[in-house]
Formats: sequence, C-alpha cells, structure tokens
Amino acid sequence: MKTDIEIARDCAMKPVAEVADALGIDAEDLELYGRYKAKFSDALWSKLDSAPQGKLVLVTAINPTPAGEGKTTVTVGLGQALSRLGKKAIVALREPSLGPCFGMKGGATGGGYAQLVPMEDLNLHFTGDFHAITAANNLLAALLDNHLHQGNALNIDSQQITFRRCMDINDRALRHTVVGLGGRVNGVTREDGFMITVASEIMAILCLARDLADLKRRLARMIVAWRRDDTPVTVSDLQVTGALAALLKDALKPNLVQTLEHSPAIVHGGPFANIAHGCSSVRGTRLALKLADIVVTEAGFGADLGAEKFFNIKCRASGLRPDAAVLVATVRALKYNGGVAKRELGYENLDALRQGLGNLGKHIENLHKFGVPVVVTLNVFTSDTDAEHALIDQYCRERGCDLVLSRVWEQGGAGGEALALRVVELLENSDIEFRLLYPDALPLAEKIATIATEIYGAQGVSYSPAAHKALKRISDAGMASLPICMAKTQYSLSDDPKALGRPEGFRLHIRDVQAAAGAGFVVAYAGDIMTMPGLPATPAALNIDIDDNGVISGLF
Amino acid sequence: MKTDIEIARDCAMKPVAEVADALGIDAEDLELYGRYKAKFSDALWSKLDSAPQGKLVLVTAINPTPAGEGKTTVTVGLGQALSRLGKKAIVALREPSLGPCFGMKGGATGGGYAQLVPMEDLNLHFTGDFHAITAANNLLAALLDNHLHQGNALNIDSQQITFRRCMDINDRALRHTVVGLGGRVNGVTREDGFMITVASEIMAILCLARDLADLKRRLARMIVAWRRDDTPVTVSDLQVTGALAALLKDALKPNLVQTLEHSPAIVHGGPFANIAHGCSSVRGTRLALKLADIVVTEAGFGADLGAEKFFNIKCRASGLRPDAAVLVATVRALKYNGGVAKRELGYENLDALRQGLGNLGKHIENLHKFGVPVVVTLNVFTSDTDAEHALIDQYCRERGCDLVLSRVWEQGGAGGEALALRVVELLENSDIEFRLLYPDALPLAEKIATIATEIYGAQGVSYSPAAHKALKRISDAGMASLPICMAKTQYSLSDDPKALGRPEGFRLHIRDVQAAAGAGFVVAYAGDIMTMPGLPATPAALNIDIDDNGVISGLF
Repeated sequence: MKTDIEIARDCAMKPVAEVADALGIDAEDLELYGRYKAKFSDALWSKLDSAPQGKLVLVTAINPTPAGEGKTTVTVGLGQALSRLGKKAIVALREPSLGPCFGMKGGATGGGYAQLVPMEDLNLHFTGDFHAITAANNLLAALLDNHLHQGNALNIDSQQITFRRCMDINDRALRHTVVGLGGRVNGVTREDGFMITVASEIMAILCLARDLADLKRRLARMIVAWRRDDTPVTVSDLQVTGALAALLKDALKPNLVQTLEHSPAIVHGGPFANIAHGCSSVRGTRLALKLADIVVTEAGFGADLGAEKFFNIKCRASGLRPDAAVLVATVRALKYNGGVAKRELGYENLDALRQGLGNLGKHIENLHKFGVPVVVTLNVFTSDTDAEHALIDQYCRERGCDLVLSRVWEQGGAGGEALALRVVELLENSDIEFRLLYPDALPLAEKIATIATEIYGAQGVSYSPAAHKALKRISDAGMASLPICMAKTQYSLSDDPKALGRPEGFRLHIRDVQAAAGAGFVVAYAGDIMTMPGLPATPAALNIDIDDNGVISGLF
Repeated sequence: MKTDIEIARDCAMKPVAEVADALGIDAEDLELYGRYKAKFSDALWSKLDSAPQGKLVLVTAINPTPAGEGKTTVTVGLGQALSRLGKKAIVALREPSLGPCFGMKGGATGGGYAQLVPMEDLNLHFTGDFHAITAANNLLAALLDNHLHQGNALNIDSQQITFRRCMDINDRALRHTVVGLGGRVNGVTREDGFMITVASEIMAILCLARDLADLKRRLARMIVAWRRDDTPVTVSDLQVTGALAALLKDALKPNLVQTLEHSPAIVHGGPFANIAHGCSSVRGTRLALKLADIVVTEAGFGADLGAEKFFNIKCRASGLRPDAAVLVATVRALKYNGGVAKRELGYENLDALRQGLGNLGKHIENLHKFGVPVVVTLNVFTSDTDAEHALIDQYCRERGCDLVLSRVWEQGGAGGEALALRVVELLENSDIEFRLLYPDALPLAEKIATIATEIYGAQGVSYSPAAHKALKRISDAGMASLPICMAKTQYSLSDDPKALGRPEGFRLHIRDVQAAAGAGFVVAYAGDIMTMPGLPATPAALNIDIDDNGVISGLF
C-alpha cells in the first residue's frame, strides 16, 4: 500500500470554495489561503444565527499504546462515511503541531484512505494560526521582561513568573534557560524556559473563546506571575490585552479543508491534552454545528483525559452538548493492555485480550457516567482473528453498547459505513441526559478527588506540600469555581504509565497545581509532564526533502 | 490630517485579483490570502520567460536622522504617480518586521497618502513569510543542539557556534541566554542568544535565492559553527537542507498587494540593512521587471549602506541592473546633518543647511561612481522655505543632477507626478554604464578598504586582532571571492554615529568579520551592531487595541 503522503498527493482535491459551496456558504464569506484552505469570515456568524443546530459526536479512545489506535483516522473516516450516506456531516479536528513533524511522530491528519488534505500544508504552517499564537505568547514574554527592566512598577516577584516563552519546535535545549544575561542594558537575569506552542495557555484560550470579546476577556485575566504577597499579576495588569488580541485576530477564525473524499473538515486550534484540554476550538465546533446535521469531533489521548476534559471543560465552558460517543480501540492495543509485548501483538491471545478489555470496560463505564450513549469501534488489522472480534463484541454487548468494525484506513469512507449507520441510529433513537461530572461549586480538591475516583478508579488523592499550598492560593484568589484540567500520563488510567489495563487500589499523587485563569481551568499535575519535547537520535527532519518543483517527500 | 491607519482603513481596496488582472495575470496564477493579499504561483514564472524586462529604479536616501526622511513613502508615492501617468509600474518593497510595531517604530509601509494596504495585515503576520523563516531558523537550532546532545559526530566546537536562534519580537532579555540547563537529559549547556528574525541569515538567503534549487544550494552551504581545526560546519553537514527548504516553500513566493491608489506592489522579504543587505527579494524584483515597464524599489538606511549593498550584493548576485536612482532627503534632515538640534528644525537656517548638504553631496558622488543617473527629491514639509529649496536646487545642479519636490505624503500620487516625469525622462535618455565598485577577485581586506575609502570617505581601515584572524580563516576556507556586507551605524557615513554631514579624516575600525556563506557575503562589523532590539519604557503595544468587530487601533 502507498504511504500516507503518497495517497494524499494523489488526491485530486476540489477547490475549497466548492467544498464551502456544498455547505451553502458563499465565496464572500470565505477568506482563501491558496486554493485548498480557507478561513470563515467573521461576517458568516450572524448569517447563521437562525440556522438549526446539528448533532455532536465525540470520538475518543482507550488509553493509547505504542501499537497505535487510529482515533483521528476513525474520525476522518466516519466523516467520509456519513457523507457517502448522504448526510450533511463535518469533521471538526485539531490543527497539527509543526514540531513533532520533524521529530519522530508523523502528521496528525489521519492515515491511509481516511485523511485530511492538503496534508503537507496542514502539517507545516497551515494558515498560520500557531505562528500567531507563538508571536502573541512571546510578545507577552518580551513585554513582561521589559516591565521588569523598566522598573517593575507592578512589583512582580521575578522568581514567581509562571508564564513561559514558547516555540512550535521540539527543542530540549530550550526547556531550561537563563535569559537577561549580559549586564544591565540587556534586561533582568532570571531562570526561564520554553514550552512547545500547543502547551501555551494562549492556545487553550483561543480554543475556548466564543468570540473576539471573549478572547479579550480571557487574555486579560491570564496570570503571568505572582507577587510576594500571593496576589496574581495578569495580562490586564500589564495593559497588553489589545496588542495580543490584535495578533490573534485571524487565528480566531476557523479553517476549512477537505477529506480525501471531499467532505468538509473544520480544523482549528490544537491545545495539549495534558496541561490543557486537548480539544479543537469551541468556535470551530459551534460553526460546524450550524452548517451540518452531524459533527464528528475528537479529543486528545484516551477517554480518561480527552473525553473527561471535552465534557467537563469544553462543554461546560461553551454550552455544547454531546449526542453520542464513539470509543476507538484495536485488538492489538487491547492485547497490549493485557500485558502482551509489542512484537507479539500479531498473534491471537484471547486471555490477554480478556485481561486488556478491562481498560475498554472502564472507559465505557466512564462515558455512561456522563449520560452519553456509546458505540465501540475496532480499527481492524489483518492480524485480528474472528475469535478476538467475537470476544470483544460480547464484552461490549454485556456493557450496553455495540461493537462495529472500522476499515476506513484501508477503504476510506466505504469502510466506515457500518459505523456511520450505527451512529445515525444512536443519534435518532437515544435518549440523552448529558450531565457534567461535578458542579462548579464543588471545592477544587473535591473536584480532583471526583475525577480520580470516578474516572480513573483511584482510591484517593494525595498532595505534595507545594500542591496543597497552591490549591489554597488559587482558591483564595477567587478561582475555586473553575473546573480541573488534569495533567496526567496518557498511557494509564492511573498516574503510573506502566499500570495498563484497569489499575485498581492506587492513590493519585498531585505534585503541583497551577491556575490557567484565562483558559478558565486549574491544572493539577499528577507527575512530571513534559511541555517541550526533544528530538530523537535520527530526527525525521533528516529525511524530509523538497524537489525543485516543490514536491515534498519524507514528511511521514 | 488623519493618522496613517485611519487613511489606510478608509481606502476602498480593490480585490487583489483585480490588481493582478491589470498586470495580465490570471486568477489561477495567484494564491490568495484573503481578498487583498496574494502570492504568485510558481507556475507563473515559466509563462513570463519571454516577457520583456522593465526598467529598474532604486530609491535611496541620505543618512537617516531622527527627523525622518520618508524613503518608503516616496517609493510608494512614486509608484502611485507613475501609474497615474499611465505607466505600467510596480513598487517592489520589503515586508515589515512584526517586532518594531509593538515597540517604538511605526509600520514600514509608507505614510500619509502614499501607503501600501492592507496596512494592518502587512504590519502584523502578512502571508506568514517571516514566521516561516523563524520556524526554519529555530528548527535548525534545535537540530544543531540535538546533534550535540546525541554525541556530536561532526565534532562541532560548542564554543564556536556562530548560528543564533531568532524571534520576530523586540526582546532584549533574549540577547544573551544560556540554553541546555537542567542536566543531561535536557541537552548540552551553552551560551546562546536570539536575533530578531530579519537579522537571520535565512532571511538574507531567501531574499537572494533565484529559485527553489538556488535556495537549497544556499541553505546547504550556510555555516552554523566551526571546529577547533578552523573548518566550518554547514547545514549540509547536518543533513537538514531539505527540511529547512520544505518550511520555506511558500515563503519563497513573492506577495502582491496594492497602494492606496490600487497600483500594484510586490512586497517580499526584509533582511536587516546592517548585518545583511537590506533589500527586498531578488525574486520579487525579477518578477516585477517581467510584469511592468518600470519597477521602483528601495534599499535600507542611507545610500552608503543601502545603495552600496543593493549594487554590490543584490545586483552582483542576481544580474539585476539599475537604470536610475532617486535620492531622498528632507530640508529638516539636511539641517540636522548641519548641526541643528531636533527642536530647532522648523526654522530656516541656510548656514546649517549648507553645512548639511555635504552629506547629500557625498551620496550623489557615490551613486555616480556606480554609473547610475540620479535625481534628488525632497519630501516637502510645511516648515520648508523657498530659500532653502533654492539652495538645495542649486547645490544639486552643480553636481549634475536635478532636484524635484515630492508631496506624496500629503497628496498621494498626484504629489509625485513631477518626480515621476523626471524619472521617466531619465530612463528614456540616460546612457547607463552600470559598474560594480570592486571585482570578485579583489581580496576581502581590499574590498573593505575600497568601500571605506570610496563610499564612506575614510582615510583607511584598522582591524581588531579577532577581525584579522577571522578574515584569514574565511579566506582559507575558500570564501575570498564573496562581496562584503558592511555592518555599520546608519546615522553617519563613518563608523561614529555622531559624525554627521560629511565626515573626513577618519579611519574605519573593523571589530569582527563573519562569513554568511549561504547568503553569499562576508559581514564586516564596524562597531557593535544590535541584532535584537529592545522595547522602550512605554511600548506601542500598550496602545494597540482591537474592538469587538475586529477593527485595530493604535498600530501607529
């Protein structure tokens, strides 16, 4: 079979204006970025005020494994399949980060015959949204350091600057730095460090903002540092909200591209799924719901992080309500969760599968706690056996949901029709009573405990002294009503990446707590979370090339 | 009178496709970025192979002063005026840098009624070219540091890494940094620092590259570090040429916008005018010459730096040949050069003006050394007196060139018609014998001496021991045939920023010399050159805002 980039390059894309036209959007409401990418103009929103709202489907997954689950591939394929069935469907996805493309990970736009195009553009600069966020983030850093340099009228404690510079590159050398060296004229010397752009709070803000006014409100209350008296210093205090918002003006507009089968895809924003909420933008989802009958979106990592945050953070902040969830797994990943080594995953192993199914089962239970109907789908591999499929099918049925096989990687939309039909059935017949897991009014520590026990299956939570102190400071500063954004390993339901399957009897340890006041959540760190990836010994960059005609190779 | 941003906002722009259509360009050869910005597709180039070549006019200036000269304003206004006269004319200009917008300096797209639009977009992210350069630059830095971290197979001397990270922000705290702190897993600890993006060698490379193949050749030979044995380490050695070029694929395509009067402007690239050559891209100029009868372009700073590099670097590298030069001055700036304090510039002072005219005279002489016919233009201010104009007019005539008044700031193209007519006359009647100042074969030190004595009027050149050693190392590494890029203060013909007018009897002191092997020049540092600006006590960012409808204010 061809590589992803070869398949993408062979696709005869439609002009994006035609993709928009099929959604009933006039050319004048598009801002084209070349022929195959566009932003929706701000003027479109008021025209859609009275449009009916479509149904919202969340694609999520079991805990990720090195075996790969293909959540984005299923999301894209489901969108393609729904369109094949004549449904007006849009997929709403995150924009890929530039950094990982040159490191180890491939792109983030699906795979095989279920991909978004233009693939190279999506994975490189796309419409510049992430660059705008990088610029706004680093302008803020420069203005903050300039404030220190010019006399520090706000009385910022330079040892309590929580804000970090960022870069959309994997660069371990920037994790821990010292800036402001070289004497008095070159600024105030202090410890600093860079995050990857997707980890910036500004990314989370952009993805949760309802409109420009809301963006400004959120930017204004973003905390960049603290004073010695435990009061926070915000962007508003620095008087630079307007400048940051001006830089983000276009980045706030959702982007339109297409799938390999020319169905529409709204791709907008891409926050980290650990220290942020890991979902594409509220604006992109809302716009999609105005334009389509069915919107398929996904959340980062497994359902313990992705779906939980999609519901408790994105839905809470925006008023969006899910109508169904698709839970993605593979036979290989389930066996891996059952203790099978990576090289042995190609062989049937029903005992290990049975063991690993505990992971799937816990995620089904969790999704039901939110009142959302679930369909499980398996991304089929040639090494799967009928006995394995049958075992999973029975397991799902015992838990009140169906199993449907997906072959979208190999067959595109055609391979997702069974899943699409089941999703449509769910949307038409299910009685939804969506509920958040906890109310705003619950104290922060109790919110953390609720997620830990209800979703992860922990026995309880313990805190470091620093985390304990931080929780108090955040509550005292008036942020006790915010939801929790858990920063935890994605590989396990627990905070131990090696505890696969369905771990039990553990306590969740919270190392630190930080307020993302602009995004509107409190980040609880369960363990060390890497916010700036590094490059491997042989980075993918060494194989990437572009020929004299502009054809890129080696991107995947 | 209205502010620049108000004038720009009141302009009823034409769709950029219409601007292109007037140049005979099909919509299919454009890549739109919204309605008012576009890139020219690569496919256009071969279609223009047989098109005749237009005439090239360089706009340059006396040494800049705090009084302001308005070189870009004249360039834009001249383009507008030529179009009013029915000429097929294009202005070819640099893209503004994002950083200074939030500091002290206004935008860089002209002023008054001689501006480029859309002004906000041009001054903020435009089509993302600078972000692409920032990304490529910092990817290279990450790959270099990763190479050190993974074992340093190339035997790089970590104390001789000449390459710097960059950021398109004014940020003094990033001038001197330490990276790679935090122990072994977080990279190799070393001193580092950031330049502003426009100072990156990749910017200079992009602006001098003929096409994608040439871009790759230049990137490949770019030197990032040296070994202890004085041999250079290049991008090619790191095997990342293709990855960098892939990131620059779209940035290499020139951009089309319009003036306030809807005449075409090609805006592409923007290298520093001290450590780089300060001219818009070769590709932009070449394309403009294929599309128009007259192309008006400018070079950074005064003619001692800007015009000299335009001729000796840009024309040498590309084969472009100038047909005429416009030398911009103001009565105020000439009086400042004659010793008048800034607050006194509004009063007639013929003695000081006579004294300051020495600066203008030297630049006229210099331009004539290249064999280029010159017309001098004064950007008229209301405080100018007839006697002052008459004195300058006589001075110019004695030196074999005309003086024409420009009122483009106040009147737009109409205020530039006299200048436009004189330029057309020059182009039709002048006998051009353009010559470079020195041949490739001249040794590096003699090239430096030629520029210093012939252009600056120095008596000679002295070198620091480090500069002396660097010259030898660069020559030994096979780069003796490259032209010189002088990094010198823009405020004086000498290396002393306070020596205004026409300084004499000085020696130029060269502090350091560095090879920009990819750009294809050797940078000679006459004094300390700031490559990362800082922010002032009250940055412009504090006054910039965007309202809920997306209207930006305070940008200027």
